[in-house]
Amino acid sequence: MEEVTRILARYVVESRFESIPATTRHHATRTFVNWLGCAIGGSHHEGMDIALAALAPMAGAAQASVLGRSERLDILHAALLNGISSHMFDFDDTHLKTVIHPAGPVCSAILALAEHRPVSGEDFVHALVLGVEVECRIGNSVYPNHYDTGWHITGTAGVMGAAAACGKLLGLNEQQMVWALGIAATQSSGLREMFGTMCKPFHPGNAAKNGLMSALLAEKNFTSSNRGIEAPRGFAHVLSTKFDPSEIIDGLGSTFEIDLNTYKPFACGIVIHPIIDACVQLRNEHKLTGDEIESVLAKVHPLVLELTGKKTPQTGLEGKFSVYHSAAAGFIYGAAGEREYSDAVVRDTKVVALRDKVTAVVDSTMHEDQTLVEVRLKDGRTLSKYVEAAIGSLKRPQTDADLEAKFRGLAEDVLPKAQVDKVLGLAWKVGALASAGDVAAAARK
Amino acid sequence: MEEVTRILARYVVESRFESIPATTRHHATRTFVNWLGCAIGGSHHEGMDIALAALAPMAGAAQASVLGRSERLDILHAALLNGISSHMFDFDDTHLKTVIHPAGPVCSAILALAEHRPVSGEDFVHALVLGVEVECRIGNSVYPNHYDTGWHITGTAGVMGAAAACGKLLGLNEQQMVWALGIAATQSSGLREMFGTMCKPFHPGNAAKNGLMSALLAEKNFTSSNRGIEAPRGFAHVLSTKFDPSEIIDGLGSTFEIDLNTYKPFACGIVIHPIIDACVQLRNEHKLTGDEIESVLAKVHPLVLELTGKKTPQTGLEGKFSVYHSAAAGFIYGAAGEREYSDAVVRDTKVVALRDKVTAVVDSTMHEDQTLVEVRLKDGRTLSKYVEAAIGSLKRPQTDADLEAKFRGLAEDVLPKAQVDKVLGLAWKVGALASAGDVAAAARK
Repeated sequence: MEEVTRILARYVVESRFESIPATTRHHATRTFVNWLGCAIGGSHHEGMDIALAALAPMAGAAQASVLGRSERLDILHAALLNGISSHMFDFDDTHLKTVIHPAGPVCSAILALAEHRPVSGEDFVHALVLGVEVECRIGNSVYPNHYDTGWHITGTAGVMGAAAACGKLLGLNEQQMVWALGIAATQSSGLREMFGTMCKPFHPGNAAKNGLMSALLAEKNFTSSNRGIEAPRGFAHVLSTKFDPSEIIDGLGSTFEIDLNTYKPFACGIVIHPIIDACVQLRNEHKLTGDEIESVLAKVHPLVLELTGKKTPQTGLEGKFSVYHSAAAGFIYGAAGEREYSDAVVRDTKVVALRDKVTAVVDSTMHEDQTLVEVRLKDGRTLSKYVEAAIGSLKRPQTDADLEAKFRGLAEDVLPKAQVDKVLGLAWKVGALASAGDVAAAARK
Repeated sequence: MEEVTRILARYVVESRFESIPATTRHHATRTFVNWLGCAIGGSHHEGMDIALAALAPMAGAAQASVLGRSERLDILHAALLNGISSHMFDFDDTHLKTVIHPAGPVCSAILALAEHRPVSGEDFVHALVLGVEVECRIGNSVYPNHYDTGWHITGTAGVMGAAAACGKLLGLNEQQMVWALGIAATQSSGLREMFGTMCKPFHPGNAAKNGLMSALLAEKNFTSSNRGIEAPRGFAHVLSTKFDPSEIIDGLGSTFEIDLNTYKPFACGIVIHPIIDACVQLRNEHKLTGDEIESVLAKVHPLVLELTGKKTPQTGLEGKFSVYHSAAAGFIYGAAGEREYSDAVVRDTKVVALRDKVTAVVDSTMHEDQTLVEVRLKDGRTLSKYVEAAIGSLKRPQTDADLEAKFRGLAEDVLPKAQVDKVLGLAWKVGALASAGDVAAAARK
């Protein structure tokens, strides 16, 4: 059996910033910007208030910021809280091969660490690339069996990605990096049973905190197995019925998983994205306001109705499971961000009226990325839009401007516009900063 | 499927101290005394120094004591550190049905909590009984498949035991207790691959800390699944190929798993215990000193040579895997505590000389608890001792006096004798104290 734990550790320790292609560095910056907006946007969710009320009395010195809030906590708790808020709306990034949300564990851990032990923007971006590489390669090696078993792979693989990224920033040597990965592997956890509860966003937060702790322990030579990932009683064999070490080894250092990261344009499950995309395009191309619509017919993949068939949602959360509400929001607002999934918008009479005019029918010739939306207007015209792959997918990635608009949509609910401008400016140039932690300090309320 | 998470939660919430039999309360006190001695004894191990150096800079207010040391940390870190030290020598308690070490996760969590939010001794003992009940019943429901898969069951089940015990002390209602168990279930972790490294004692410490955190989050209404244990994607099905809910439900409230707890008299794997027991008995019955021994022949179960066949151990740790050293220590010292597994004793020429006279042969008619030890003396006499079940097993439990001697052997290496007397006195009467946390404060260096 290949000693993949050591191979990964050696790669992370020996990797030099210069070996990271410029395009990959830019992908890392996009990942960071998207994550930061989500973390600021989710920072005042009820789950954040609860977690802070419960844990702040045990927190240590004010070493790092809780983004979008006034609290400063020790770096372990800051990593936990920022990880929770970044996944609160299920609006963060997705590595589609594994459905890992890569940034939550890695960015939450390294930004907290960078605020306390300053590092350059280059080192920060480098650690981000490496952390995502480690978590996604480990994810690839056990996916899909591991996920199918019931593991929330963002938590289980994320803790090792966070450990690797923090270990890089701490300057661990190879043996210490092996231990950091092992200490992380033995904390690998997170059950899919928790989806729909506050424990879902808890998983990336906990992975960030525990990955950071693993690196801190390894830095002082706390020992673990040298084969935490690949041993018969290690991570891969205990938590999965499939383990393909070639997914970890092949192309290591020459291909980068962060290049495959995607960013949701809409704050709901990916299955409705093609329909919303079609509605927004129809709206914008024909300057529709919603009032002129007589009826809407969407031909969709079977999973759409299975997962999001809720006809009369009553809350913002229920709206995320309603293709009808989502289509109506697309027509009326040209968007389906967190705001369009607020309780108020879901109950808005204008939205409800249009929602009731939407029909969705299963078309088994459609694959998951496809849809055909037909709109009948009151003036008798019929418009239609076919989507082959939704905006935000790998085939039609969000532009930097899209990401910026998404960031503003999330952050401006929390911080003053001038501050949002400043944070966004810093985030785009994080790789050039003298101290990457300055971004966190700037994003404090 | 029975809703065992709710059944357990309701039982813990509704249980009254008066419903715990006096014998069970005494078992809880014995469990506490044994755990406390182990935690004090292990408190200056290198792994503890490392963990403190790494994590103390992130710790919060001085809420709870690190036993046997001068540091005071927030309750989460204190629970972690005391859990690590209590398992450092592998000398703590064993629930033989599951090989769970029950006290590490539960006692470490509730003692830290009790020091910060004072509770009566009765409430403390009650929570200890309930926490052990929860972790061992959950363990029974998935054992042995769960353990065979590679999970360190002390960590995986322990986190839920710690959550239940802390939740009881915090006065959670039924729904909150369900959440506490769920938040704990989704943190369930710990790989057997880590055995032989510092991560092994890390597991009960981490379970204590995370179980306590789960209860604190649930107290503020942080939500989880209501079926964290039994759901198709919950703890039992994801982490085990066997799940028998009757092990959780049957007899709940009328039988107590803590009654089945055992305490090691010797600081090594249980497989050598019958041999050491025989050697100690021969020594004491015949007033042997070791010098008069010509040769020793032990007839043993095959596992003894498989696991502990090291002929020439060079370090204390290696000594634990040597039936030869262990037998020699039994003859010379009449004991095999942590002291007899120090580097110095393992290298002592007198011990080495006797060790080299020990032969162990497999006798396949022996079961694991049995041994026959024959000693040939220089004066020509032959002595023998047959052991049917070793001291410390359920058939021959350690007496309270044995536990007290063990406690002193561990604690007197760390604290002055007068302080050991005081701590031991408090520990035996923990159930009668006005504030159980006083024991922790008294055990500080």
